[in-house]
Amino acid sequence: MDEAGRMHATQLRVRFGETDAMGVANNAAYLQYFEIGRIEYLRAAGHSYAEVHDGGMDMVVVEAGISYLRALAFDDVFAVECELAELGRASFMFHYRLTRDGEVVATGFTRHACVDRATMRAVRVPEWLRGLGG
Amino acid sequence: MDEAGRMHATQLRVRFGETDAMGVANNAAYLQYFEIGRIEYLRAAGHSYAEVHDGGMDMVVVEAGISYLRALAFDDVFAVECELAELGRASFMFHYRLTRDGEVVATGFTRHACVDRATMRAVRVPEWLRGLGG
Amino acid sequence: MDEAGRMHATQLRVRFGETDAMGVANNAAYLQYFEIGRIEYLRAAGHSYAEVHDGGMDMVVVEAGISYLRALAFDDVFAVECELAELGRASFMFHYRLTRDGEVVATGFTRHACVDRATMRAVRVPEWLRGLGG
Amino acid sequence: MDEAGRMHATQLRVRFGETDAMGVANNAAYLQYFEIGRIEYLRAAGHSYAEVHDGGMDMVVVEAGISYLRALAFDDVFAVECELAELGRASFMFHYRLTRDGEVVATGFTRHACVDRATMRAVRVPEWLRGLGG
Repeated sequence: MDEAGRMHATQLRVRFGETDAMGVANNAAYLQYFEIGRIEYLRAAGHSYAEVHDGGMDMVVVEAGISYLRALAFDDVFAVECELAELGRASFMFHYRLTRDGEVVATGFTRHACVDRATMRAVRVPEWLRGLGG
Repeated sequence: MDEAGRMHATQLRVRFGETDAMGVANNAAYLQYFEIGRIEYLRAAGHSYAEVHDGGMDMVVVEAGISYLRALAFDDVFAVECELAELGRASFMFHYRLTRDGEVVATGFTRHACVDRATMRAVRVPEWLRGLGG
Repeated sequence: MDEAGRMHATQLRVRFGETDAMGVANNAAYLQYFEIGRIEYLRAAGHSYAEVHDGGMDMVVVEAGISYLRALAFDDVFAVECELAELGRASFMFHYRLTRDGEVVATGFTRHACVDRATMRAVRVPEWLRGLGG
Repeated sequence: MDEAGRMHATQLRVRFGETDAMGVANNAAYLQYFEIGRIEYLRAAGHSYAEVHDGGMDMVVVEAGISYLRALAFDDVFAVECELAELGRASFMFHYRLTRDGEVVATGFTRHACVDRATMRAVRVPEWLRGLGG
């Protein structure tokens, strides 16, 4: 977490199973990297996924976007920087930056809706998440 | 399903996302192929996964083994032949053969335990599955 | 391929390994579905991936976007509709629609750059692909 | 690496994308865990994958086996213990133990053949790997 408590960086390494026959991380792997980034963001903010989930709420992904700037090769070490971006009434966004040796190799976002797990109906973004948005 | 109703073959094609930087299907993909093979075996035998699952039972994998004989390249078409093999009181096995143009490229097995989903305790192999074992 | 030769639909089924603990297809699986959709689009247009690749060109993904409208459950049958959309000098786009029983469950796009495999420098979109764009 | 330089442990956490609709790590994920374990084993022994690969050799997986003892849930932290086991003329084995809080949750092995990347013919296990086998 940075000092303002808005951004969190998770260090990862490209797994062999994430590469494809082009010799680089497959384009679908980036959504996995984003998913890991936001789970670690929430953990760093003191809110484990288990806690979120046990509260009867799910944060479903309703939209995602990725810009691929530089390929990631097998064994490359990189950081997933994740930041809470927009906070609506029942939805919010995370922004992501993947960096390798300080160079941005990809950017992206995910938009999430808060839903009640039992009914799958939209519910308000919880107060603790609202608090993270500064 | 073959005439004896013991073996079922599912046709697949190696996906780009399943290859790795060696240019062939990653070793972990084969367990996915086996999983697809046994689900299609059960469907062909008239028992969808949903039916199995809704009955409150899970068939957890307790053991698996694979022999890799020939590499599978991207876009290769191959068949997953799946056969119900051993039937114990609370467990059973599937045997698998992956073939490409009639050549066996991999063999393997999975051993499964039947468990009650609520308690995760072992339960008897259901009669309908026992029937398939002929 | 539709009559105009612009759109191609590939039928798929949600694999068990593609689901996650929410019980539905994981958000990253959709980029795999898109990848399969465009490979089958090219095959239907008479251009196998092998042909593209052997020509010394790669079509790298430079941008992707997905809107998730309805969740896909395990074993759901759905279609990936893929259409060649925009054709620039050195890049082009595919648009995607995932439909289940006629209902659109997701939409998205990928933007691709044509690069020389040896040098990874941008090259012109090949004529045969230009021809598909009508 | 332990003192004898024979065993190496890598700490991992179950990713959300590795779980399936049963709510636990999918059976295929374990082969990914093994793959990560042996790559980190080699790195700890001073031999990066890049070095191995650049030497013109590949270590293809020819056999694998897994015993699943306890399920791994999402977010579980566990260790992949990896040990070089058998050394033949042109093949060798790794043994694996997955432990969570000291409890063994899975065991397994992979058998590898050393092949020349250009010809894919079997070659002798290199001396440096032979040295690790003690």
